[in-house]
Amino acid sequence: MSDPTPPTAPQGPRVRAIPAGEDRERLMCPDCGYIAYQNPLIVVGSVAVWEDRILLCRRAIEPRKGFWTLPAGFMEERESTMEGAAREAWEEARARIEIDSLLAVYDIPRISQVQMIFRARLLSPDVSAGPESQEVGLFRWDEIPWGDLAFPTVHWALREHQARLGRTDYAPAVNPAPDVLAQWERML
Amino acid sequence: MSDPTPPTAPQGPRVRAIPAGEDRERLMCPDCGYIAYQNPLIVVGSVAVWEDRILLCRRAIEPRKGFWTLPAGFMEERESTMEGAAREAWEEARARIEIDSLLAVYDIPRISQVQMIFRARLLSPDVSAGPESQEVGLFRWDEIPWGDLAFPTVHWALREHQARLGRTDYAPAVNPAPDVLAQWERML
Repeated sequence: MSDPTPPTAPQGPRVRAIPAGEDRERLMCPDCGYIAYQNPLIVVGSVAVWEDRILLCRRAIEPRKGFWTLPAGFMEERESTMEGAAREAWEEARARIEIDSLLAVYDIPRISQVQMIFRARLLSPDVSAGPESQEVGLFRWDEIPWGDLAFPTVHWALREHQARLGRTDYAPAVNPAPDVLAQWERML
Repeated sequence: MSDPTPPTAPQGPRVRAIPAGEDRERLMCPDCGYIAYQNPLIVVGSVAVWEDRILLCRRAIEPRKGFWTLPAGFMEERESTMEGAAREAWEEARARIEIDSLLAVYDIPRISQVQMIFRARLLSPDVSAGPESQEVGLFRWDEIPWGDLAFPTVHWALREHQARLGRTDYAPAVNPAPDVLAQWERML
């Protein structure tokens, strides 16, 4: 395999222009002509439980290093959304999970991201930190470190999971409306 | 704005190598060093109805030119999944829709695609072909051109829509199991 690193610092696609036959600007490379289509990215993750405890991971990497999150990450090519969520649970918490249903779909258009969070069952309570986690833990509802959660969507998904305990065949949650958000914030 | 087209035919990222600090091969450009992360693409679309008729579009472009499909296409940056589905309904069928719920999530890992199909209501029966459609039409269930549908997921989504008529707060459909597929094929 040839060394793909060029002798000078690469710059890559950096010019916005409308390619022939298209109707909107795309990011193009003025050196090689490559069109870097930028599409929304899918984050896949899970609320994974063992009995009445929920798996959380303390982030070892930025952003939000040191804060607690659900096992989740960018979906890779040639996997299904559920396979991706299971892979992330293994990579971040050495957890084996069985996925039950789609808990939530969160749109974050500001950063062109769609988060798909599944409800899952841990196949064993034996979990341990993967390379991107400082530590992992299983938390009962009143033990969740609400003030130290990494992202709003972690908070949202945990509340939606709690609201659906014992339910099947439910519509996945979407971004909470402003009045619901305000109510949750008052609860903290 | 400078002309981003280089004097010779561009080749772009074409070498697979593991970038520093990563654990899997990525597509890199040996000319400029750019790493072309390849992530699954999201297709957003809808089963949009006016009374008991469903909107379908006959494709004016490849693949499957001349076959019937749901209004759907690649999600763009800085839009939500529902906004994307509504945009596609406008672009392909000049249809204004109101989205009701998430009907189906189809994983197509072979081509690294996730399709999110919504259930929607047409705000008016006035629809017409956009630039990517030869014609558009509103079809009652027994008028659907089952033998001339463009993709399996169109067939799947139509059947799942029919199965959920009158229902709310349902789990979105996922890829049908092999026995369900076989049953549907016998019905054609």
